[in-house]
Amino acid sequence: MKHETMEFTDGGLNLIDQRKLPGEVTYFRATDYRDVRLAISDMVVRGAPAIGATGAYGTYLAALEYSSRPKDEFLQLVKEACDQLASARPTAVNLTWAIDQMKGLIDEHADQPIEEILEVLFDGAEEIAAEDVEINKEMARHGVEVVPRGANVLTHCNTGALATVGYGTALGVIREAHKTGKGIHVYADETRPRLQGARLTAFELVEEEISATLIADSVAATLIRDKKVDVVLVGADRVAANGDTANKIGTYGLSELCAVHDVPFYVVAPTSTVDYSVESGADIEIEERSPEEVLMINGKRIAPEEIDVYNPAFDVTPAKNVTGVITERGIARSPLKESLSRFND
Amino acid sequence: MKHETMEFTDGGLNLIDQRKLPGEVTYFRATDYRDVRLAISDMVVRGAPAIGATGAYGTYLAALEYSSRPKDEFLQLVKEACDQLASARPTAVNLTWAIDQMKGLIDEHADQPIEEILEVLFDGAEEIAAEDVEINKEMARHGVEVVPRGANVLTHCNTGALATVGYGTALGVIREAHKTGKGIHVYADETRPRLQGARLTAFELVEEEISATLIADSVAATLIRDKKVDVVLVGADRVAANGDTANKIGTYGLSELCAVHDVPFYVVAPTSTVDYSVESGADIEIEERSPEEVLMINGKRIAPEEIDVYNPAFDVTPAKNVTGVITERGIARSPLKESLSRFND
Repeated sequence: MKHETMEFTDGGLNLIDQRKLPGEVTYFRATDYRDVRLAISDMVVRGAPAIGATGAYGTYLAALEYSSRPKDEFLQLVKEACDQLASARPTAVNLTWAIDQMKGLIDEHADQPIEEILEVLFDGAEEIAAEDVEINKEMARHGVEVVPRGANVLTHCNTGALATVGYGTALGVIREAHKTGKGIHVYADETRPRLQGARLTAFELVEEEISATLIADSVAATLIRDKKVDVVLVGADRVAANGDTANKIGTYGLSELCAVHDVPFYVVAPTSTVDYSVESGADIEIEERSPEEVLMINGKRIAPEEIDVYNPAFDVTPAKNVTGVITERGIARSPLKESLSRFND
Repeated sequence: MKHETMEFTDGGLNLIDQRKLPGEVTYFRATDYRDVRLAISDMVVRGAPAIGATGAYGTYLAALEYSSRPKDEFLQLVKEACDQLASARPTAVNLTWAIDQMKGLIDEHADQPIEEILEVLFDGAEEIAAEDVEINKEMARHGVEVVPRGANVLTHCNTGALATVGYGTALGVIREAHKTGKGIHVYADETRPRLQGARLTAFELVEEEISATLIADSVAATLIRDKKVDVVLVGADRVAANGDTANKIGTYGLSELCAVHDVPFYVVAPTSTVDYSVESGADIEIEERSPEEVLMINGKRIAPEEIDVYNPAFDVTPAKNVTGVITERGIARSPLKESLSRFND
């Protein structure tokens, strides 16, 4: 992408403001961990891998803020900030994962001077960010094998450079398939209510000059039935040990249509998205977001004020509907529980 | 409804302006047939049964306008106005049907004084409007039997009083179930891209004080899987002789989820919506509408200008996914071809 999702400069994290894309390309600058938490909860930045790296930088900013305190107090305050950051969004495991990595670094270096801990944390955040891009590229390299030449690929939500530190998960595979000359065409679901497909995926596809068509979410069913889709690629917010996958609302319906019509359905996610502590999808907490996301678009009300709204951000796709999980370590195929367990070390 | 879709008073037709709902409840007053034509083509009024009755009143207004002319001239001018009205929306069969009824009345009474023809036309329009409400109530009476006590009912698009002269088709059944004290709860799909569910169905449900929840279209799949929906009720734009049903985009996907999870899926439509000249859904032409419906909401762009859009207005649900077609003459059940043919006389 021409625009970076995030960049840390001069003591602050610059995040492309995804709430305003594609109309405006502006940056949100977070100079303390509270700004970072807000950026995550308010979805300035979104996408499981992206909020992981953002959370890591947030931990560093908290450490910076408290660096003049006595050591004990410093350690206590930074850990409290970590808990605050981790609670910004509940479903994506990557946020907890990244912050746990940072907490681990703090514990490891707790005996050292604060100055050194700061350095370790900054390097840790930079490494998580850099690794994310590397991991995405590895996933893309594995994933491109499941995309037939000239394929019509359908994707949901935004899983691109904007959802990660760079490149993308499902959209990274699409990017790679395009770059390697496979001559693909992409159908992008608009992804109500927050329209990440219309706003962000379409933005990335246009920037990369990938042949693409935007559709209302409910158009996908007919395209899948009519074999106008050869493969579906989606991301994940959390994959349970058995392969059940929590991802953006609408993913489950797509997976069921694919199952009925024998269309391959792949989840593209780094192994850090697999939560081995969670046995099945039934144990994944599904975030419910504000009714305003459904009731308002661009600040204008589209429905009567008095109507109740149910607005779950995610749904759970059962492992049986998942053809494979494309990770940086290879593709896990059925039985997913067994094949995913091989990546747990 | 507290607000009538249409009401003829003091020489003019008052139409609730559906372009402005639910933000503004205003009326569009048509005092000549040109206004009526504009109201139909610009979608002040929409829904096949509603535009049929509107067209009938338009014919009466044309007759009123030309009533001081010599008889021959009067007859000629009114028929020309009829042709104008019928072309306002070429695909809606109910509009042509209603205007043909009015033309028939003119032919029948051509020998009588203009004053009497006017009276006949006014009564004719009133009868078409009244009959539409009666047919809806008959459908509701039959349909209510398939709605269990305390059921969660899911519906798509707007099929209510606003889409008809009053009461509604699928939403008419819902209204009846509520009125008869079944203690139902409704899930209303917002229905992208034109948001008829969010704008119009939600408006009607709030007005009628029916317990209801608005959802993004892609939420329905999970609700159906989790048995939080007991029955799905939708309308129809055209039903083929074999029971294949063209309806608002998104209907097919719902039907497939219902088939997978054994949830009853009913189409509610008058027998006039069954097109016996069309053998199956494969022969139904699917209207593709403007990309702007997907790209813009409330006059604001939500996606990059350069992205291609595919925007079919309807999809086709195969007869095998339809539990029954609820008509004013009873419920046609599988095999639909046979049971629907009994209503063809």
